[in-house]
Amino acid sequence: MRRMVFARVAAAALAGVVACALQASGQSDGEAVPIFGIKMPPGYRDWGLISVAHEEGKLNDLRAILGNDIAVKAAREGKLPYPDGSIVARIAWSYEPLPESAKAFGSAQSFVAGPPKNGVQFMVKDSTKYASTGGWGYAQFDDGKPAGETVHNACFACHEVAKERDFVFNRYAP
Amino acid sequence: MRRMVFARVAAAALAGVVACALQASGQSDGEAVPIFGIKMPPGYRDWGLISVAHEEGKLNDLRAILGNDIAVKAAREGKLPYPDGSIVARIAWSYEPLPESAKAFGSAQSFVAGPPKNGVQFMVKDSTKYASTGGWGYAQFDDGKPAGETVHNACFACHEVAKERDFVFNRYAP
Repeated sequence: MRRMVFARVAAAALAGVVACALQASGQSDGEAVPIFGIKMPPGYRDWGLISVAHEEGKLNDLRAILGNDIAVKAAREGKLPYPDGSIVARIAWSYEPLPESAKAFGSAQSFVAGPPKNGVQFMVKDSTKYASTGGWGYAQFDDGKPAGETVHNACFACHEVAKERDFVFNRYAP
Repeated sequence: MRRMVFARVAAAALAGVVACALQASGQSDGEAVPIFGIKMPPGYRDWGLISVAHEEGKLNDLRAILGNDIAVKAAREGKLPYPDGSIVARIAWSYEPLPESAKAFGSAQSFVAGPPKNGVQFMVKDSTKYASTGGWGYAQFDDGKPAGETVHNACFACHEVAKERDFVFNRYAP
């Protein structure tokens, strides 16, 4: 059962890392997601890089895990749990063969990021507010709009398998 | 012939983007690479993210393209050519299945970054100093040490095919 829940939910979040923000500073004007009440954190695309990943199957994307300064520092130092105020972002793009490369090699060799895909996900650490979900609030935005309750109900069930890493799947890529 | 040169060199640099630094500010203490005289720019791992990629075949890595502030701004705005002072970095890691994911799905689904692999590459824009190689100087470091002349002689031959994009293969991933 856990296995099934995980497999289903992984389709939305795996290798991801999900969460979202509502610190007094850095609040955005957009709509908040259900359950966790998180809005899209402004400026997240300029945050530091934690790691990168590729999802096969239905997701079929290339993704980057970014973090605000607090999260990147914690990830780099490998100190768990992440401190309150940490925000981790998962952005993703379609998985595209690079034409120049395919032409030169006679077959696909290089795959690069195409248009944005599979939404944007955030994990926001607030050990008091989100105590019942491991201290993290979760948020997913599709085309800039909050995803629904079903999606947000599934986040923690999946991330729970990474409990020994404070519910964050990715490690810092040095 | 162009095709062969490209294919060979691509093994070292493709989807990469190569180059390196020697601005008055931000000079590092390490050894400079041959031909272009570039040292490893300090703090590059904390630079902003331009894009991500996956290389198959012998390279078999996950990679990130980072840029200093000048390069990220130029890439984001899509304004070519990149201004002098731009530095683009290509870092890469081994391509590893995520055990949690493989277990849940019954087969590999998520691939994440493992240990660093295939060196670190830089492209440094200085249209005067590097006029003969499209305004870019190139540098590759393996385990922190400058790669040899053969490697550095090959950089421009490969990047020349991306001339219409100012010799940079990657586009900014929004």
